[in-house]
Amino acid sequence: MRLLDYFRYIRNSTTNSTAGIAKERLQVLVVDEGSERNASSYLPQLQNEILAVIKKYVSVSDDAVQIQLDHDDHQDILELNITLPEH
Amino acid sequence: MRLLDYFRYIRNSTTNSTAGIAKERLQVLVVDEGSERNASSYLPQLQNEILAVIKKYVSVSDDAVQIQLDHDDHQDILELNITLPEH
Repeated sequence: MRLLDYFRYIRNSTTNSTAGIAKERLQVLVVDEGSERNASSYLPQLQNEILAVIKKYVSVSDDAVQIQLDHDDHQDILELNITLPEH
Repeated sequence: MRLLDYFRYIRNSTTNSTAGIAKERLQVLVVDEGSERNASSYLPQLQNEILAVIKKYVSVSDDAVQIQLDHDDHQDILELNITLPEH
């Protein structure tokens, strides 16, 4: 449950800093940990396919998507932050 | 960069507790935050489609996948933990 606790923490700190204005946001995080294959090579393609899947369920404009790819010796990380339209 | 810092922390604590044995693991986290639509209704289907996409890139047996769905008043969370085969 540690990941969940972390997101509760993030949500609480975000809510405080925006004086209670709640925007809907979708976050997707993919972490390849302890990888010996080069995950960096497939994460960009995976990212496009995951985004295509998400667009089946929620309305997403291209400028509402922030993408971050990062890696170190031990893990590759793909992070998608999507601001959803108000409805 | 907070998410990345968090995962670095998790990796370090995991490495310590397993005396340096590094298994490859893929973690996927989807968080729908500030949702007014009922994200719980689409997350199970999204989960299946994301898993299908991941299986295009890495070899995943069904018993290697742990799935957790959770929600509270403010967010819906889908977590996939996949242990990858040694290679």
